[in-house]
Amino acid sequence: MAKIRRVCHLLLRFLAFAATLSAVVVMATSHERASFFTVSVEAKYTNAPAFKYFVIVYSVVTVYGFLVLFLPAQSLLWRLVVALDLVFTMLLVSSFSAAVAIAQVGKKGNSYAAWLPICDSVPKYCDRVTGALIAGFVAVIIYIILLLHSVHTVIDPLLLRKN
Amino acid sequence: MAKIRRVCHLLLRFLAFAATLSAVVVMATSHERASFFTVSVEAKYTNAPAFKYFVIVYSVVTVYGFLVLFLPAQSLLWRLVVALDLVFTMLLVSSFSAAVAIAQVGKKGNSYAAWLPICDSVPKYCDRVTGALIAGFVAVIIYIILLLHSVHTVIDPLLLRKN
Repeated sequence: MAKIRRVCHLLLRFLAFAATLSAVVVMATSHERASFFTVSVEAKYTNAPAFKYFVIVYSVVTVYGFLVLFLPAQSLLWRLVVALDLVFTMLLVSSFSAAVAIAQVGKKGNSYAAWLPICDSVPKYCDRVTGALIAGFVAVIIYIILLLHSVHTVIDPLLLRKN
Repeated sequence: MAKIRRVCHLLLRFLAFAATLSAVVVMATSHERASFFTVSVEAKYTNAPAFKYFVIVYSVVTVYGFLVLFLPAQSLLWRLVVALDLVFTMLLVSSFSAAVAIAQVGKKGNSYAAWLPICDSVPKYCDRVTGALIAGFVAVIIYIILLLHSVHTVIDPLLLRKN
């Protein structure tokens, strides 16, 4: 039972690592050139501070997720990993939400502020950003599951065990 | 010692409650009318989905923070509170980040996407949104402190105690 649990845990961590890695790669490599009248503009992630924040945070978490894969099961450092999971999940949630907020304006625009949607001009770029955000969402969900599982194991919040 | 700790804890929770409440009130009541050529537009929080999300999440957390203030110190439900703190802090971080991302575009604009800043047209509205975001930031910080304190107490991640 403990072995199955350990394998499931490692599998989830590996999936989270793969999701953050693909989010970074897809977001960082997506670019498209568009012409407005005589001006040619290249759409890429560095144009929006929220997308830059997304790439930085997801890169850091990718490195962290990779290192954690090699931590032995008996290590006492797993307690530190719970605390680090908490901090990094906050950062993931934060950068993901900021990126989604900006992507939403990019797709739908905002008529009150006279911000026009840009996805008609750079459709491929928009599709790739959407892909990166989906991978980012998967990573966020997995990290939240890992965290809630840790909390459940350690604190027993639903009072299932007898004292 | 336990009593001082209990008072500090309650004080922090009360501050978090006050911060989320003021964030909601300031964000929800801020509006300003501006005229572009012949069109009159009212800037208010319902114009941006990210601000609507901010108001909804902060309202829910305000109610939660109010209820937790009345939980007796001996209650076993404090374990459930740790798990709920985790979920609500994620929601706070998420809505705060999304609102900041949109507010940043509102203040600075984005020249690549041809989104113009709107703060010159509605300066008072911008100031009030900034105020709401500052209160929101304070609430996020307090909830993260409460969470890290719970984790520290229960899991001892820095391995300070001898086994």
